[in-house]
Parts: sequence; structure tokens; C-alpha cells
Amino acid sequence: MLILMSSDHTKKQLADVLARVRKLHLKAHVIPGRNSVAVGITGNARALDPGLFEILPGVLEAMRVTRPYKLAGRNFKHGDTVVTVGPFGIGGPGLVVIAGPCAVESEAQIIRIAHSVKKAGAQLLRGGAYKPRTSPYAFQGLGRKGLRFLAKAKKETGMPIVTEILDQRSLDDVAEYADVLQVGARNMQNFALLKDLGKLRKPVMLKRGLSATLDEWLMSAEYLLSEGNDQVFLCERGIRAFSDHARNTLDLAAVPAVKELSHLPIIVDPSHATGVRSRVASMARAAVAAGAHGLMIEVHDRPDQALCDGMQALRPDDFAVLMRDLAAISAALDRGMAAPKHGGR
Amino acid sequence: MLILMSSDHTKKQLADVLARVRKLHLKAHVIPGRNSVAVGITGNARALDPGLFEILPGVLEAMRVTRPYKLAGRNFKHGDTVVTVGPFGIGGPGLVVIAGPCAVESEAQIIRIAHSVKKAGAQLLRGGAYKPRTSPYAFQGLGRKGLRFLAKAKKETGMPIVTEILDQRSLDDVAEYADVLQVGARNMQNFALLKDLGKLRKPVMLKRGLSATLDEWLMSAEYLLSEGNDQVFLCERGIRAFSDHARNTLDLAAVPAVKELSHLPIIVDPSHATGVRSRVASMARAAVAAGAHGLMIEVHDRPDQALCDGMQALRPDDFAVLMRDLAAISAALDRGMAAPKHGGR
Amino acid sequence: MLILMSSDHTKKQLADVLARVRKLHLKAHVIPGRNSVAVGITGNARALDPGLFEILPGVLEAMRVTRPYKLAGRNFKHGDTVVTVGPFGIGGPGLVVIAGPCAVESEAQIIRIAHSVKKAGAQLLRGGAYKPRTSPYAFQGLGRKGLRFLAKAKKETGMPIVTEILDQRSLDDVAEYADVLQVGARNMQNFALLKDLGKLRKPVMLKRGLSATLDEWLMSAEYLLSEGNDQVFLCERGIRAFSDHARNTLDLAAVPAVKELSHLPIIVDPSHATGVRSRVASMARAAVAAGAHGLMIEVHDRPDQALCDGMQALRPDDFAVLMRDLAAISAALDRGMAAPKHGGR
Amino acid sequence: MLILMSSDHTKKQLADVLARVRKLHLKAHVIPGRNSVAVGITGNARALDPGLFEILPGVLEAMRVTRPYKLAGRNFKHGDTVVTVGPFGIGGPGLVVIAGPCAVESEAQIIRIAHSVKKAGAQLLRGGAYKPRTSPYAFQGLGRKGLRFLAKAKKETGMPIVTEILDQRSLDDVAEYADVLQVGARNMQNFALLKDLGKLRKPVMLKRGLSATLDEWLMSAEYLLSEGNDQVFLCERGIRAFSDHARNTLDLAAVPAVKELSHLPIIVDPSHATGVRSRVASMARAAVAAGAHGLMIEVHDRPDQALCDGMQALRPDDFAVLMRDLAAISAALDRGMAAPKHGGR
Repeated sequence: MLILMSSDHTKKQLADVLARVRKLHLKAHVIPGRNSVAVGITGNARALDPGLFEILPGVLEAMRVTRPYKLAGRNFKHGDTVVTVGPFGIGGPGLVVIAGPCAVESEAQIIRIAHSVKKAGAQLLRGGAYKPRTSPYAFQGLGRKGLRFLAKAKKETGMPIVTEILDQRSLDDVAEYADVLQVGARNMQNFALLKDLGKLRKPVMLKRGLSATLDEWLMSAEYLLSEGNDQVFLCERGIRAFSDHARNTLDLAAVPAVKELSHLPIIVDPSHATGVRSRVASMARAAVAAGAHGLMIEVHDRPDQALCDGMQALRPDDFAVLMRDLAAISAALDRGMAAPKHGGR
Repeated sequence: MLILMSSDHTKKQLADVLARVRKLHLKAHVIPGRNSVAVGITGNARALDPGLFEILPGVLEAMRVTRPYKLAGRNFKHGDTVVTVGPFGIGGPGLVVIAGPCAVESEAQIIRIAHSVKKAGAQLLRGGAYKPRTSPYAFQGLGRKGLRFLAKAKKETGMPIVTEILDQRSLDDVAEYADVLQVGARNMQNFALLKDLGKLRKPVMLKRGLSATLDEWLMSAEYLLSEGNDQVFLCERGIRAFSDHARNTLDLAAVPAVKELSHLPIIVDPSHATGVRSRVASMARAAVAAGAHGLMIEVHDRPDQALCDGMQALRPDDFAVLMRDLAAISAALDRGMAAPKHGGR
Repeated sequence: MLILMSSDHTKKQLADVLARVRKLHLKAHVIPGRNSVAVGITGNARALDPGLFEILPGVLEAMRVTRPYKLAGRNFKHGDTVVTVGPFGIGGPGLVVIAGPCAVESEAQIIRIAHSVKKAGAQLLRGGAYKPRTSPYAFQGLGRKGLRFLAKAKKETGMPIVTEILDQRSLDDVAEYADVLQVGARNMQNFALLKDLGKLRKPVMLKRGLSATLDEWLMSAEYLLSEGNDQVFLCERGIRAFSDHARNTLDLAAVPAVKELSHLPIIVDPSHATGVRSRVASMARAAVAAGAHGLMIEVHDRPDQALCDGMQALRPDDFAVLMRDLAAISAALDRGMAAPKHGGR
Repeated sequence: MLILMSSDHTKKQLADVLARVRKLHLKAHVIPGRNSVAVGITGNARALDPGLFEILPGVLEAMRVTRPYKLAGRNFKHGDTVVTVGPFGIGGPGLVVIAGPCAVESEAQIIRIAHSVKKAGAQLLRGGAYKPRTSPYAFQGLGRKGLRFLAKAKKETGMPIVTEILDQRSLDDVAEYADVLQVGARNMQNFALLKDLGKLRKPVMLKRGLSATLDEWLMSAEYLLSEGNDQVFLCERGIRAFSDHARNTLDLAAVPAVKELSHLPIIVDPSHATGVRSRVASMARAAVAAGAHGLMIEVHDRPDQALCDGMQALRPDDFAVLMRDLAAISAALDRGMAAPKHGGR
């Protein structure tokens, strides 16, 4: 923490600042300047709240000089976290692709699509049973029935399941069926839910909130980690900016930035980021070239009948073409597709 | 809904669009143009999903020509909703001011501050017992103990209580003590929580999400209304933009815009919108001049010892000065401060 | 400037940083911390470029601890700048209102509107002769003819003229006729134009760029001031954010923020900020309550025939009603409308 | 254009709308709806201004149903524009890389860097002689001397020159030396400058403004095209959003979006988009995978002594590694690097 005194601060005000530092059992370093004085603070194990000092008279600004998170940061852990999902590792050199429909619509639908995305090379299956919808009148998902259909698809194809958890009430159900519990953008700061998920011992995929900074996103991961769940990976899915040519603005530079700041894996969801089928493939290719550990892509074989987000779903044929491109880019950059560790199916 | 066909659409594609309209039991109106054709759709009781048509080949764009909400909109109800809280009405000509500390810290603290804000003219008391915090290591509120302290302050002063509801588990407790349940910005799209609150028969204050459009905000209100709770008011508290001179960017023009679109009352929270004490008063004055139905303002008598957001809290003296300014502006605009209906205290 | 060394920096890297500080004839203060080391720099008369240090190996971050501008800042000058325009002072306690049409369309039009806004109490007349238009096919203004019509209107009413300067070529013409030269949002960082305007001895009104931070805005003012022109005032006119209910997002909290940072006057343009007639009045009232030194408001007596931005123009009757509200709010806050100093007309 | 009447419009108001349409010699199509009426307008050769109708009483909204640009749009021209610069074509299948320092600092510097980027495979040389700087106290470029140094570097290496044009006064000088005139983000809506550049017969690279929508960007291109200059290509360089981990937010999805809307080539500048050396390479790779026609990358062999933006400059060795990656990705996607047409050097 560095404290900047205003140019017209009094001696008493500076003394009060120093007294507060001592009261916190920390050390103050006074730095005299041309117009004013700065005070460096050291000795704190964890980031301090700037407000502790900014409310004191004579203080112009208090600035953090370390990141607010601890367990999620590179300083805490050497090397990269690899999250294990069935036979696959997310966070290693191999690219992991999660594919499937936006929502589970029927047993036949999810099994059919699961087979097609597996054939194209996807390792994990996605499908929403509980759907967060802006409108109370829109399709809200099949609920428990949807979870059972996912289990059938998993049994048929061997693909681990990624599905969204919306609230505390359905937590036990979702945790029973899911291999990865997905926290959506709207729930990134639903701290009560995060605390509950932190007590599970199942992988959690934490999507970035629509207007979350990287610090806020990693602090939400910290909620999961601080409760003891270290099987966490992140998913960039577009932020809200002024730009109106796509549903959201894909912030792809977050990928290298997060990899500098954190040991947690990061994947990209080009489907929600663009919201338009014709741009999903180019953003998927870009994400791999940018260094993402994986992708989550919506695929539907009858997009014009989809109950949810059909516009952004790739058709199975287009998805297969894209998977070949992704493999080629991975190979060009000396990576490859993640393979199952112990056989798998 | 208006559908624009792309300039190179085929006759069959147009026929498919018309067929889909008929299948939905709606009426299509073909509008031939210079370069292409548009199709107007009428007969729908509720807004259609553009995706239903945009996924069809040959369709360039489908645009909503009505708002997606129904119960929250001006078309649904003539006149303005007035939410009754104890002896006060929010949404009428009189200005309602909710004041108090960010968090309840002790019985003595909340009673002391309640007396001081009541004396200055505030009608309702705020104070958080459950606090949503970006960091898992920050003070999370006193929980049920905080609710009991609020009840004491209410008994002492007669002021109705506004306090935040964070999750489904604490819902019964909070609903027992609160006169108004506050939904914070981070929970604006916690749809499971909104559905539960919609089943209550207590007033709900719905804060705008950090990056919510007015449509999204009113759709979240629609979740509450569609479950049967019509005692809902809105609170603008700043959005996230690039601007870095304040904690958030107060979108004050949302006040006249919401009043055009909806019959629900709208108040403004200048404390969270700015995050800086020195700018709270000017934004509070501006909100009243802009036509807000009320204000929510953080007040603390020992801000440098506050456990939460002390930097944005007004001191009681400054709050009293501000209240006089607000009364003067209200009077200048032929409004006044809301008075209790049946005596009150 | 404060420099944070990365946690794994070497002794040599720290020594290189200190050497660079010495080379700049500045003083370094090493602050040892728990995980790393910080270096405070003092002795610089002007803000340093963080890049000077961030490019050195071992440096995590270099942070400015003073503002980058000098002449525009409060530290440079005690008291507030008051810009003199004809008999009026902008920046004093009295409110100044600039009103008129978006564009000069004919001699009759500008004279007619000038009379009506003067009668309602406006002190200065606005009207564009050169118009910046997004489309090359839109009306681009009457040019020199428009300037002559403005001169006629000034002669008839005695109102000083505010008009936009678009480029270097028309500078002499505009400077001949204008009492205030307006730099539009799109030209806020047209540095070549700013340098030329800095050499004039005529007041300049600098609008905030659509996505300009306060620092960038004040640095553009610094271009004007550093060339010797100290007759500068600022105009907030809305920024670009995600919000879609208005043309722009009025950042009204910039008013108290700028007043803390700078001695330059700041006014508000609610017409461009909202783009919608029905919201201009509420934002105008809010701006006065927030402490703005003045307003710029578009008025047109035949808005449905206006060649430019008719939708946001107030009709003269509505403008007169608004002026009464503004006077009432100003009076309630112990301010008033600016009066001419030496007679005037 | 589609006009939506408000639900309480009168017959006279609808008649007035139809009269205005007729007056414009266009055709109106009335579409009766459940709550109101819409009016489709056809027959216009060019996009209409919504304001023409929105100012009429009873009109709720007027929506464009075609894009506002004409010459820049896909409808105007079949196939893609290829801009010829020396022996290279920008806009074809081959990737074009423009590389060099942010600013020309000396004859030796620009020649040295030119040789190194040419060796690594770059086809065009960049270097600023006139620099737009936020601060009036920062290095403003060498001016004409810088242009002569660029000419020397061109003579030595044969590389065509890309350099920025800042204002009308230096236009003749810059046009004499440059093979491509670069319009920076801050000047994207400097319409006076655009009109002048439109009269040249030299290629112009138009950078996207910091907060420009695609429509605004393409309208600025339209200024160039409508004056007769069809040698125009676009450069995405990051937009301003709330995200604070990089200098700007690279909006990579603009690449496929622009390619759908326009026939003009689009390249990406990952250096300004990130502002941080360590993230330039990943965004450069991503841009190629996303389908950009080229890249503009800052390279400096002594970045810690650079007079401008040294932090984002790649070192020649890192640039050479990146160029190999870019070639590999291009090959994986069946593209390659652009080769000179007629020999070249």
C-alpha cells in the first residue's frame, strides 16, 4: 500500500496516518517529495483496504501495490493448475473442447448431438438443464429431467458433463449429475452460491461476469479456492462494451493477461461472445492462437428449432470443419488436442 | 416484430418465413422495398424472440418493435405505482430519503445513526446485515444479529427498515425484519432469488445491475411482478463505463427514461454511484432535480472506523445540510418531502 | 512516480532502476517490502512517463502519483478561472445559458430564434456554421454565409456568439465572427487544431471527447493553455457507454470531479447528452443542481423542419419554462443567473 | 426505414407522417398492428435520417433498415478490394505485415530497424514523423526530417512506407514521402482531413476511433471513397471499454464483422491494442487466425531508449519468432504471407 498525502496536509494529519499504520502492526516508510509526502506501508500478509487510509483527513489517495487475491495468484503457486475431468486435463498443453447444445431439450436431442460432437473430436459435453433467462416468460430449462437426459448421453458416449448451476436449491441435484458445475456470468458475484460450490470437491467452471474486471473475476475464484475447492477453471465469454456488432465484446487479451496473473486454466466461449453463428468459428480459431486452454462451443443439429440461442449454434458439419482448423492451428503452435489419460472411451 | 430479408433472398426463403409466422398463429405483412423485402408481424400478445426468425435462411435481421416486458410497462397500467412502506408512499410527489450506514456494526451504532438521520428528515433507515463483498476476506456483515439490531433501531425511532437480501437461505430471516427487501446490483439477474421475492407480499427495492440495460432491469422487475408482488421500486446506483474518476458512472438520464417506460417508482443511490464523499451531495441534489422519487444515502458518524465503505458515507452534519438543500430544490420544483400518512412517529 | 519491482527481481535490475533515476537528476527512495521492493521518485517538476521505467527488466509497474497536467490543475492556480465573454463571466457564481439552434439555416431562422432565447433569459447564442456530420451526405452547414447570419443575429440582439471550429482552414473566418470558438467532441484530440487555437486570444469551449477520461480532457485543455490562451472552459456532453436509452451517457459526476481537479469552468450540454427532447429539461435541471457553471441547450422553433438534430431541440415555449425552473433551482442553492457586468444589452 | 407510431397516436398524426413520406417522393406502406401501426418506407436510394420522422408528433421510433453507407458496403461492390502498395496487395489471401518503430528517432535508428524487420519477413515499414500525443510536453515527432529518414530507409531496403498524417498543413509533405497515409484513431472523425485525403490517389489506412461503432468507422471510410479515393483499408486497434488490464480492449470480432459488411481490407494493430509487449504476440497470432488481412506491429531494437511507446515494442528477435508463428498459422489455414507481384526487392 502506498499513501499519497495531499499537498496541503498538516503535520498532525501525517502523524494520524502513521499512528493508524502502527495500530495495524505494520511498518510505515515516509517518502518526502517536492509537493507532498508519500507513505509506503509494508508488513501486511494480505492486501489492505485503501479505504482504511483514504478516509483519513489529508490523505489524497491510497493505492494497492499488490493484487487483492492470494490463492488464485501466481505468487501463491508455482506452475499451472490442471483440472482433471474424467480422463482429461484442462490447463495442460492439450486443447480441450466442450461442445453441445445451449439447452437440453429432449433425451433424443442430447444423445444425438453428443454423438456428433464426440465424433468431431470434442472431449466434454455441455447442455443446460437450468437456464438463466432475461425474460420470466422464456423457456427455463427441463430441470431434473434434463439432468437425467445428460446422464443418459454420458452413458452412451462416455463424455463427461458440463452443466450450469443456477441456485442453492438445485445444488445437490446438479452436483450429483455434473462432472463440471458451470457458474454463469450473471452469478459470478453470487457469493452465497460460490461459498457452497467451494465446499464441493467437483470441478467448477467460473464464467466472467458481463462487466467484471480481472481482479473481480479472480476474487470470485478466490471465494471457491478459500473454501477448499482447488478444481477451478475460468471461461471468458465476452464483456459488455459500447460495441453493437455482436452480442458481447470478446476480450481475448484477457487470455494472456489471466495467464500472467493466475495459475488457473482459462477457456473461451466464442458462442456467447459473438451470439452470431457466422463469427463463432473465427473467434474459436483466434482463441486457440491466443493460447486459451480450451473452448466451449454451442452445437445444434436443428438450430432453427432450438428452444434457446439457436442463432449462435454451429451445425455439426460446420463444427467438424472448425475442429479440423483448431487441430491444425494447435499443431502449428506445437500444441495438440487433449487426449484421455487412461484410455477413456 | 419486423423481419428484414437479405437482398439476395430466394422466394422459397421468404415463403418459409411466412410459413413460420402462420404456424405461430400470427399475421404477416409483406412490404416490398427497393433492394429487398420486409415482413411485419402482428397479432402477438407478447414480444417475440428475434431468434425465431433470424435463424431462418435469407433473413437479415429481426427487430422487436415493442418492449419485451409487459407488467412493468406503461402500457399495462395507467398512472404511477406508489409503494407503501409504513406510513410513507414511494412514487408519489413527495421525496423519500432512505439513510443509514452501509453495514450494521453494533446495536449502539445503528441506533445512534438512526436517531441522527431521522432528526435530519430521513424517513427510512438503511443498514446491511448481510453484505456482498468482492473479497472473501472482507467483513461479511453481522447476519441475524444485525437484523435484530435493526429491529431495535426501528423500535426506538419508528423508522421502517431497508436491508439487503443476499440469498435464498436467509430469505425468511430477512423478510421477518425488513420493511423493504433490497436486491443488490450483483443479484439483479439472480432469477431464482427474484422468483422467491416475487412470492412475498413485502416491498422490494431492485437495484440496477452494473451493466444492465433498462430493458434488462425492467425484465428483472417483471420476474417480481409476474409472481404476484406489485410492491416494487427501482434504484439507479451507477453503471460501469470507462470513466475512472468515480467508483461507477451515475446514469442519471435513466430517471426520466424509466419514468417514460414504466409505472414503477425510481430512486437514486448517489453514495455507491460515486464512492467518494465529496461528490455525494452534488449527485443527490442532481437526482432530485432530475425527478427521482427518492434517494438512498449512506451516513456514518464515525466514517474512519466504518467496517465497510466509510469513504462514501456522509457525516451527520453534512447530511443535515444536504437535506436542507434537497428540501429547497423540491420546493423550487413544486414538490416536497414525503410526509407520513397516518401520523407515524 | 512510484516503481514496484517484481518479486523475483535481481540486485542488478534494482541498481539499473536507481541508475536511471540518477541519470534523470531525480532522487530515488528505496522502500523494502515483504515480497518485493518499491522505489519512490521525487524531484521532478512535471509528471514522468511510466514507460521510462516499465521497460526496464525487473520492474512490475510504474505508477504516477501526481496528475499529468500542470497549467490546468488546481495546484497551478488558486481560485477559479472566470472566462469573460462580452459582458458575461463564465465560471463565477452566476449561471450562464448558451442557447440556439444546432445549425444556422437562414438569416431569418437564426435571428428569430436568437430573439426568443434572449427573451427567455439566455445570455449567449449558439449556432453551427460548419457542422461535423457522421455521413458525408448529410447537411454540412452554411459555412461563411452562416457566420455572417450569426453576425446579423448578434447585431440585432447583442448576444455574443458561440460557434464550432472544425479545421485549420476555416480558423481565420470563424475567429473573426465568433466570441467563443467551440471545439467539438470529435476534435478534442485534434492537437494541431488545439495548438492553433492556443495562439488565439479568444475564449475556447472544449467539449469532452466521446470516450475521454478527465485526465485526457484536461491534457487537451493543457494544449490550449500551454500556447498562452487562458480563456478556456469545458463542456460535458455525454460519454459513450453500453447504455442504449439515450444518444450518449451524461456523466454528470464529472462536474464536481472537474471542479476538484481544475480551476477551469465547466458547463453541460444536455441536448447532445440525451439526444431526446423529452429528457433535456430534467438533465438541464440536474446539471444546475450538480453545480455546473452553465448550460448549452439547443432550441428550435420549427424542430420538425430542422436540418440537423431537430429531435433534441426544445421549442421556445418549453425553453422558457425550463429557464424559470433553472432560475428557481439556482435561487434555492443561493446562486442566480449571470448578469451583464457593464450594462450590456 | 420503418416508422412505429405510438399506441396513442391520432389519425391526423399518421396522416402527417404519410404526407411527409410523399413529400420526399417515397412510398409508404401502412402495417396495422395489435396496439399500434407501423409505416414501412421504400424507394429511397440512400439511407434516410430517422430524425426526419422521429420529430413528428405521434411517432415512437424510426428505424433504419439498411446501412447508412453505400460505397463502403458489400452491396455496392462484388468481391473484395485489394489495395496495392508497391509490389504488395493488401486484402488478398496473403498476409501483409507492417512493422517498425512507433516514431522515427534518427536516420540510423529507422534504417537499422527497417533491415531487421525486412529480414524477419515484414513487407511494409512503419514509423511516425508526426506523433499525436496526449501531452503537449511529450515528444511530438521529428516532422519533415523524420520523413526524409523514412525515405532513406525505403531506398536502403525497398520497403514501402506507412506513416501518419496529423493535419491539413503537413498533408503535402506526408503525401510526398508516404506510400500509405495513416489516419490515427483520434482523427477518425476529422472530416476536413478525410475530405482532403479522399482527393489524393494514394492508399489510406483508416484506424478505428477509440469508441467508434462499425457504422461510424465505415462512414468515415465513406468520406474517403465519396471523394474518389478507393485505395482504403481499415485497421482495428482496440476500443475503450471498462477493462483495465490492457491499454485498450482489442475487439477482434470486428474482423469477421467488417468482412461481412464491407469489401474493404482490414488489418489489426496488436501493439496499440494491448500496450504491453508480453501480450502483443498472442494477439497477433489471434488476429491472423481470426482472418485479418494483415498486421501492424511496433518493433524497436532498443525499447528502453525509445522516445515513444517503448513498452509495447517487440524486440527484433521476438518479432522474428512471431513471424514464424504467423507463417505457420497462415499455412495451417491455407493462406500464406503476401509476396511481391513483380519482383520487388
